[in-house]
Amino acid sequence: MKVSVYIATSLDGYIARADGDISWLREAGSSAGQEDYGYGEFFRSVDCMILGRKSFETVLSFPTWPYTGKRVIVLTKTLEEIPARVRGRVELYSGLMKELVASLEAEGCRRIYIDGGKIIRSFLRKNLLTDITITRIPLLLGEGIRLFGETGYDIKLRHIKTKSYESGFVKSTYEFALQ
Amino acid sequence: MKVSVYIATSLDGYIARADGDISWLREAGSSAGQEDYGYGEFFRSVDCMILGRKSFETVLSFPTWPYTGKRVIVLTKTLEEIPARVRGRVELYSGLMKELVASLEAEGCRRIYIDGGKIIRSFLRKNLLTDITITRIPLLLGEGIRLFGETGYDIKLRHIKTKSYESGFVKSTYEFALQ
Repeated sequence: MKVSVYIATSLDGYIARADGDISWLREAGSSAGQEDYGYGEFFRSVDCMILGRKSFETVLSFPTWPYTGKRVIVLTKTLEEIPARVRGRVELYSGLMKELVASLEAEGCRRIYIDGGKIIRSFLRKNLLTDITITRIPLLLGEGIRLFGETGYDIKLRHIKTKSYESGFVKSTYEFALQ
Repeated sequence: MKVSVYIATSLDGYIARADGDISWLREAGSSAGQEDYGYGEFFRSVDCMILGRKSFETVLSFPTWPYTGKRVIVLTKTLEEIPARVRGRVELYSGLMKELVASLEAEGCRRIYIDGGKIIRSFLRKNLLTDITITRIPLLLGEGIRLFGETGYDIKLRHIKTKSYESGFVKSTYEFALQ
């Protein structure tokens, strides 16, 4: 089973501005027309999403629910009730990440898509990720929320492939070694 | 005239560990045999080096002087005397970076190679760079000295080219727009 991150960062490694704003990313992307940078292909390979609470709230503000057909699990220790709009589409989970991953694997999940900065950093520190795809936007933000936090030790990755796009975006996929 | 940065970073954006150690970089590179990742070609295009004092002291500890045939300027406000070993090979400069760049251009310099984390960040903030080549090593260090600091505003770049190597290194070159 794959446990995957698929994310865009600025060239200086930020996934959002300090206040969480990601409009710079949409603006950079919109100049590229209909190019989806491989997201559709990636997303079709996903059975299950694991989101943090903040990402979940961001997604709830979208005009349409983007995860139809995928099992969606929101990691939260504070949220107790699923908003009516997405009841039946979302599960809440407050237990151990490692146990969640093991139970999803046991239930036949083939690829989990991990989204949200804090959740990604937690999965990274717990060595639960199998691969990460980073699309680098040719822009320096200077400050904001970083993709990577402190890991406490070196983590080696294996480069799988890199593709650059007309827009200047550069997408690289890496696999994590089993620790 | 080009004012260029040519540097390697970890995947999480560090150029050195917190104490300045770059042995992780040499270890990652040594597994790649004789591959120079285009450094030789880049270096041949350089007339002039501008180094920070710390980088200069690191270079002084090398068994041989690596910049023979290049004009080398060390930016420093504290160093007053050039070590005997490199007298005649190195100039000290404590003035304004912008004036230094202008005078090098007037003297016919075609490409300046800027090296050293602090100096690179200063040139970046002052909009004095024309291009940057970053070779990303597939390793997360978790902490250390970052390539990019706070810029105070967005800086857009133009992606020129990306090349990936057997070793997993990915090298991308970007140009800065005139600000």
